[in-house]
Amino acid sequence: MYELGVVKRHIVRADRAATDQLARYGASTVHEAMGRVGLMKPYMRPIYAGARISGSAVTVLLHPGDNWMMHVVAEQIQPGDIVVAAVTAECSDGYFGDLLATSFMARGARGLVIDAGCRDVRDLTEMGFPVWSRAISSKGTIKATLGSVNIPVVCAGALVHPGDVVVADDDGVVVVPAAAAVATADAAAKREANEGAKRAKLAAGVLGLDMYQMREPLAQAGLRYID
Amino acid sequence: MYELGVVKRHIVRADRAATDQLARYGASTVHEAMGRVGLMKPYMRPIYAGARISGSAVTVLLHPGDNWMMHVVAEQIQPGDIVVAAVTAECSDGYFGDLLATSFMARGARGLVIDAGCRDVRDLTEMGFPVWSRAISSKGTIKATLGSVNIPVVCAGALVHPGDVVVADDDGVVVVPAAAAVATADAAAKREANEGAKRAKLAAGVLGLDMYQMREPLAQAGLRYID
Amino acid sequence: MYELGVVKRHIVRADRAATDQLARYGASTVHEAMGRVGLMKPYMRPIYAGARISGSAVTVLLHPGDNWMMHVVAEQIQPGDIVVAAVTAECSDGYFGDLLATSFMARGARGLVIDAGCRDVRDLTEMGFPVWSRAISSKGTIKATLGSVNIPVVCAGALVHPGDVVVADDDGVVVVPAAAAVATADAAAKREANEGAKRAKLAAGVLGLDMYQMREPLAQAGLRYID
Amino acid sequence: MYELGVVKRHIVRADRAATDQLARYGASTVHEAMGRVGLMKPYMRPIYAGARISGSAVTVLLHPGDNWMMHVVAEQIQPGDIVVAAVTAECSDGYFGDLLATSFMARGARGLVIDAGCRDVRDLTEMGFPVWSRAISSKGTIKATLGSVNIPVVCAGALVHPGDVVVADDDGVVVVPAAAAVATADAAAKREANEGAKRAKLAAGVLGLDMYQMREPLAQAGLRYID
Amino acid sequence: MYELGVVKRHIVRADRAATDQLARYGASTVHEAMGRVGLMKPYMRPIYAGARISGSAVTVLLHPGDNWMMHVVAEQIQPGDIVVAAVTAECSDGYFGDLLATSFMARGARGLVIDAGCRDVRDLTEMGFPVWSRAISSKGTIKATLGSVNIPVVCAGALVHPGDVVVADDDGVVVVPAAAAVATADAAAKREANEGAKRAKLAAGVLGLDMYQMREPLAQAGLRYID
Amino acid sequence: MYELGVVKRHIVRADRAATDQLARYGASTVHEAMGRVGLMKPYMRPIYAGARISGSAVTVLLHPGDNWMMHVVAEQIQPGDIVVAAVTAECSDGYFGDLLATSFMARGARGLVIDAGCRDVRDLTEMGFPVWSRAISSKGTIKATLGSVNIPVVCAGALVHPGDVVVADDDGVVVVPAAAAVATADAAAKREANEGAKRAKLAAGVLGLDMYQMREPLAQAGLRYID
Repeated sequence: MYELGVVKRHIVRADRAATDQLARYGASTVHEAMGRVGLMKPYMRPIYAGARISGSAVTVLLHPGDNWMMHVVAEQIQPGDIVVAAVTAECSDGYFGDLLATSFMARGARGLVIDAGCRDVRDLTEMGFPVWSRAISSKGTIKATLGSVNIPVVCAGALVHPGDVVVADDDGVVVVPAAAAVATADAAAKREANEGAKRAKLAAGVLGLDMYQMREPLAQAGLRYID
Repeated sequence: MYELGVVKRHIVRADRAATDQLARYGASTVHEAMGRVGLMKPYMRPIYAGARISGSAVTVLLHPGDNWMMHVVAEQIQPGDIVVAAVTAECSDGYFGDLLATSFMARGARGLVIDAGCRDVRDLTEMGFPVWSRAISSKGTIKATLGSVNIPVVCAGALVHPGDVVVADDDGVVVVPAAAAVATADAAAKREANEGAKRAKLAAGVLGLDMYQMREPLAQAGLRYID
Repeated sequence: MYELGVVKRHIVRADRAATDQLARYGASTVHEAMGRVGLMKPYMRPIYAGARISGSAVTVLLHPGDNWMMHVVAEQIQPGDIVVAAVTAECSDGYFGDLLATSFMARGARGLVIDAGCRDVRDLTEMGFPVWSRAISSKGTIKATLGSVNIPVVCAGALVHPGDVVVADDDGVVVVPAAAAVATADAAAKREANEGAKRAKLAAGVLGLDMYQMREPLAQAGLRYID
Repeated sequence: MYELGVVKRHIVRADRAATDQLARYGASTVHEAMGRVGLMKPYMRPIYAGARISGSAVTVLLHPGDNWMMHVVAEQIQPGDIVVAAVTAECSDGYFGDLLATSFMARGARGLVIDAGCRDVRDLTEMGFPVWSRAISSKGTIKATLGSVNIPVVCAGALVHPGDVVVADDDGVVVVPAAAAVATADAAAKREANEGAKRAKLAAGVLGLDMYQMREPLAQAGLRYID
Repeated sequence: MYELGVVKRHIVRADRAATDQLARYGASTVHEAMGRVGLMKPYMRPIYAGARISGSAVTVLLHPGDNWMMHVVAEQIQPGDIVVAAVTAECSDGYFGDLLATSFMARGARGLVIDAGCRDVRDLTEMGFPVWSRAISSKGTIKATLGSVNIPVVCAGALVHPGDVVVADDDGVVVVPAAAAVATADAAAKREANEGAKRAKLAAGVLGLDMYQMREPLAQAGLRYID
Repeated sequence: MYELGVVKRHIVRADRAATDQLARYGASTVHEAMGRVGLMKPYMRPIYAGARISGSAVTVLLHPGDNWMMHVVAEQIQPGDIVVAAVTAECSDGYFGDLLATSFMARGARGLVIDAGCRDVRDLTEMGFPVWSRAISSKGTIKATLGSVNIPVVCAGALVHPGDVVVADDDGVVVVPAAAAVATADAAAKREANEGAKRAKLAAGVLGLDMYQMREPLAQAGLRYID
């Protein structure tokens, strides 16, 4: 892992139908469906509200203050991909702006997830190219050191293999291993199917205490009601 | 304080008229009217801009990663209440989403203030249910450990007794002790009545230096003008 | 530097045309045009999205929890100025609200950059008075201790002399030394002129790898493509 | 609560024997004995390692950058007390140094817990006067605004009433309500009595899995062993 | 990855000689020898200064506020191991104290690396059991939810497979993949052999500018000397 | 300011006697003597306790992850200097270790103040070379981009001109402008001369309330004593 100076050209992307379907449920439902693993740290925030995407991870490992490999990864993007960029040390520099976004969009990328900074956020918002990042910063970067493309990376605390599914929205970013994409999509669909009925009951005033039959276990745990 | 496993059913809510009136002035004016105490830490941010509410505090003490008591507190909500949720240790997990919000709305809650994370923020925004939280996170929670409902809690650095008034808007969250609600509403009303005239003067170009008669005390403190 | 209790009345503002022109390019392009120096820390965020301004810096040095000098600096504002407020220690208090904003606007200020907190953000948004700050907080301030006006200050990690140009937008805040304003405006204009052609090429699918002729230096650095 | 400008002279201190006894067990054992409540945030750190104290809380509420009330609280100290200092907003200024420590020691204080900064830490270390603080900073403070002494305060997230017991060591700071001091000391003593036998078993190689009989509940929860 | 409720009993540990040898060079030299990858975030700090260890990683995945699996992992420890504990969300609770340390030591563990909190640090220091953690906290944990043992985990931003080598000292924590242990030990040995001669030259006043022949590339890059 | 690629060879160092004398008083007293300005942010911490130094600032501006200029600055060090290193963006990388320290010591440097990371802290501690830094990190750096030497820099929020006096100890780092060195040394000496008598009085039980004659102004401000 973490071999530097390597670009892997052929990666196995997760099942396309499942990959696309996962956007429908959003990061929180997918995260539950996976058993509450695979979530990036909550410091990863979208540059604008309302985007909800899923796609195949194309990964890139960067060095602090150096975005050379962002140009290398651009060539490996296929339509439907989401670029996931990790950095070898904490850095808030603005690695990505409207020019790179233009290039990524031309290649068919659906978005960028970067554990560093982003800039030109007004332009990116107008272009409708969503980015999840740890910072917004005008600080540009140099092009001096090799990283790698399409190796496994740790991005914002989550392990991402190339080809994994990334689901991102206002709640955060979740990574679904490629092998688990179909099962996770099924599980998420089931969760969501269940939620409609629950929502209706709760809206009608039924309490979760009753709907989930919590009163007895709460009493057994020792809950006491006083006046 | 901080007895675990207890739900207090009957609490004394602050004067209803004063409680409702306080939303009119907003958190900053109310905070001034109280003598600059009772403010939660500024890391508490609304999940969407523009909400401004006041209501009676219904409190809940939670454990890290465990939202069991959120279902218990739901039953204690009365129309006009705001739920204030504290956690026994720092935690960014998403304790609250659209299902709980549906239940809280059905009970008449005006909003939630939680010193932890929140999720489903797109849904909550569409539902118009405002939440002030320290984080947004897809990370779900378990239901294993008892906390308490309607005991005094420390939430984001502020002490909140059940029945106190909570005032929350884009500037933050302020807690008004129940016994001080009427006096605070009066003081806030007076502050606001004064502000109109001041605002007009300042808009006309009168300086605060003159309007507040600061020139003499500044000179006495030693202020020197140079070229 | 940092003499306390001093107000400098006559400052030399940077070339007006260049000052005004710089807003056109935005913080990120200006920062690049300057050679990547002069940027404030990325924790400085606008209170609402979409503002993009440039103007002449009028500086003020404050003490923690004390906004007395904000009234003193108001008198030194000329149309087209941006007030830059530094604090002698980290503080998140809300030094600035709608009344001061009314006064600043009446004097012709274009905005405020403050390494502390701001409040009344809903009102400021409605008034269209942009503020870049490190925090939003209802916490008010006292008026007890002298700072200074129009001395050089360090604000969010950037040195600002009175009369320097400040450029601020959604990407952050950049400071251009007065003597460099014209040259920076020229350099920024050239950068932007170049970007149109580049953007068109990238949008057409040309890769940065080819457009910037990176393939050879990458190979020389040892980049390897594998399957 | 939080009335400003008030000094309460007569407070009821917790049982002296229990207060003194609690230092023996340390913050972590006492926190467990209380049911895991009453802990200050872990950002509170001792200025030197190895101190372990307990004492009666004498409280003071300060304003950012203003230590006037530290001189007022000094007069209220009795032998065996620990001063607990809260601030109305986050502040890292150095409110406390060797002169105040000399005064506090002369009054019989055992230490200081302050949700702000401290300075002269080399002198304080040599004097053997322990301080738990959120920061170390040379930044001095002014004397301009009234706070209060011996009112309930929230310090680093914990509610402290004057007279409560404070237990502080390398693990952190715990607050025991005065009414719970004797019971907590008993519970802590029991915990510690139990720990000796457990420690011996564990040192002999017995696993917690067996000593606490966890194998069955783990299996019931679904734990699987694989090769 | 991240399957919950699983304990892998048989793991392949990296070459023992190389594993033991790596402690000699320390985290910084090993990190360089690996090509500057594999470093945990710098927020991971030792609870006392001066420890320098290497060992085989035994991994455990925990939930926030729940240390049940710490007892499960204890059974999997072999002499020479270092336990690496990851948590599914950020948490500062004190998962580990003197009792668990007694058990870990009895099993032959050399230390603990935990992306959460630790307590009883005075006892651990006296016992000489080193811990690298993100926090120190008296806050205890519950035993309610299954995690896993000996699965790959992301700890403080670094991917750790069971059997990898962990090197930890005052500079931080580095992870060496098992397959790279021997080569890394060789590379580190070479680095260190070179350093003696360099150190002697530098101590004698030779400049790095000359020793590393930097003057020409600096001049080519455009460095100018002025008076 | 902030011209890149420039090394200024001849700088005017502050008065040597005053520079050396300032270490005697320490950062906190010097900071007070200067009127409470010139302090670096409190996140700057010494790598070991107990060092107290003063010296002439030799400055260097670095880029994130790039320590090339550290070798350039080494040549400009004269006996009695302290190197002050600023970075153009936030970075925790370990720019400085035992080899550079050997070189700096050979040139007569008294210490390093760096707004980034440092490594080999065990070696540096043994060598007795004190460093104040924002982080400790094994992460090495590259040598690719020019910064500057002996230009004014902003380091941890403080403006530092080459030749200014730096005073650093356990309380933090203070910068005294060269022109103010003598006056500041005099003022600090006076402060310290006064402190002995005050300390004796306080140790004898005299209260600050009486020694500083605070009772009347406190009463005038409205302080009330209650029972």
